[in-house]
Amino acid sequence: MDFFERLATPVIMNNPSADRVKDVAKLANRSGRTKSGQFLVEGPQAVREALLAHQKKPLLDAVYITEKAFDRHEDLVELLEEVHGSPTPEPGRKVFMRMVTDEVLAAMAEAVTPQGIVAVAFQREISPADIWGEGAINPKLVAVLTRVQDPGNAGTIVRAADAAGADLIITTKGTVDLYNPKAVRSTAGSLFHLPLLQGIDLEDFAEDAKGQGIGVLAADGYGRVSLDDLQDAAFAARAGVEPRKKVKYDLAAPTMWLFGNEAQGLNDEEKAAASLRVAVPIHGAAESLNVGMAAGVCLYASALAQNRKR
Amino acid sequence: MDFFERLATPVIMNNPSADRVKDVAKLANRSGRTKSGQFLVEGPQAVREALLAHQKKPLLDAVYITEKAFDRHEDLVELLEEVHGSPTPEPGRKVFMRMVTDEVLAAMAEAVTPQGIVAVAFQREISPADIWGEGAINPKLVAVLTRVQDPGNAGTIVRAADAAGADLIITTKGTVDLYNPKAVRSTAGSLFHLPLLQGIDLEDFAEDAKGQGIGVLAADGYGRVSLDDLQDAAFAARAGVEPRKKVKYDLAAPTMWLFGNEAQGLNDEEKAAASLRVAVPIHGAAESLNVGMAAGVCLYASALAQNRKR
Repeated sequence: MDFFERLATPVIMNNPSADRVKDVAKLANRSGRTKSGQFLVEGPQAVREALLAHQKKPLLDAVYITEKAFDRHEDLVELLEEVHGSPTPEPGRKVFMRMVTDEVLAAMAEAVTPQGIVAVAFQREISPADIWGEGAINPKLVAVLTRVQDPGNAGTIVRAADAAGADLIITTKGTVDLYNPKAVRSTAGSLFHLPLLQGIDLEDFAEDAKGQGIGVLAADGYGRVSLDDLQDAAFAARAGVEPRKKVKYDLAAPTMWLFGNEAQGLNDEEKAAASLRVAVPIHGAAESLNVGMAAGVCLYASALAQNRKR
Repeated sequence: MDFFERLATPVIMNNPSADRVKDVAKLANRSGRTKSGQFLVEGPQAVREALLAHQKKPLLDAVYITEKAFDRHEDLVELLEEVHGSPTPEPGRKVFMRMVTDEVLAAMAEAVTPQGIVAVAFQREISPADIWGEGAINPKLVAVLTRVQDPGNAGTIVRAADAAGADLIITTKGTVDLYNPKAVRSTAGSLFHLPLLQGIDLEDFAEDAKGQGIGVLAADGYGRVSLDDLQDAAFAARAGVEPRKKVKYDLAAPTMWLFGNEAQGLNDEEKAAASLRVAVPIHGAAESLNVGMAAGVCLYASALAQNRKR
């Protein structure tokens, strides 16, 4: 019996009202995710990244694929065959895979176009104890989502943070759940690459971070220090020359960036938690930068300064 | 008769099937836009920017607002009153404004949540003759959308280009129309801040640009030169020190960036049009950067180098 047949045995799942289908669909809502401790991964790109992450450390619970998607994605099928029946994070439980009809997939998915494949994964957050100390992450570049509301923006920040080489993602209370299916999609797989801790109390966390020698920078359009000046000063320090303008922060130092709410930015308490408020300069007539874009520009500026120093 | 009454006179537009409503709705499609030479602007933020741009140079043809939106946006109403009846770009024609019902606004708009206000504006592209020479733009920083397909990405690039102080937006043949309502929304008003030329032939245009002393950089994940090295070298040149790595391009020079198709990147002909292929480095495990984010990082790198040189 080849792999295709095994996935279709005893029968291709074809009942959109089946309990199993409803259980998957419930992961679109926060209450469903909280109850099961699981989340939904949709589309070939994200599922591929989840499969690769699972091979390093168990993550997945189940994968559902349509016949069409099975025929289209050869490389994905290879990965699926490797992962099929491997242990899930729950002791004694193995990764379940099944062929499903288009209707069943549509009933499971949150995306309008799930592209023929969804997976169910276990949420896997770190604990605060994993962050500082011997054998811990001791991060050098952290993105903190501070009441970011839009799942697309949240996912975009995670993807940019991953690309810029950040080593930790934090969300504060009041931030959209990164296990929201839209957020998961927007991370384009980067959710599986970085340790994550959600729902922290910012004031306490920022205190801890500063105590560990991490600078806390608030990305704030009204900040008094320009990101350009920080970059310029970081380069000048590397080159051993005088900066054009003296600044009070070394961008090459371990840094935790705070990225705020789309409409309101950072509030007074959030700003107070930062060591410094930094503005991405607006050179043209744009009213502002989208928070995802601002995050990308800030994180890349930090990455350049940090990498060139090493 | 106060301004509210004037907008509701002779009657609040309440027929979603009226010809005028259908004409506005047609602007959601390229054929409708081509026929009328107009486009749709949706939501208070974008309409505000359009009104401000109109005050500098006629742009608008009509504005439609619901009672609810009228009551909610005081600052916008002031602007509306100033623009009401002012000349449109078409000789003898004046800006038309009318109060509409929620149903009529929904029938006009492409957005699911147009937030109570839409405007109709005239497309206003520059001609190639406006770009180089005496009294022309002679741009220093240009974003070229090269077969970008997603209107959201296209709009995001325009917004980032505006913020970074670019002075010209170009699209090649095969790029999504920037007057697509989704693209207009994603620009968050920046579409009204920058001169635009759509549908150019890249090979010819890049030749012209190089002849005018503008470097053409291809943003290409597989590019052999790292954006970090270009930034580092630009800093070093300013500081009068040796760069860590010699590069063949001065990032402070006038620059035209090519940003490619989401799925395929830049094709061979497009890459050949560039002086240099530059990669935004991926420091982490992310597979790639979204083209909008890559554009933002590249344009900000150019802006920093150019501004610090001046």
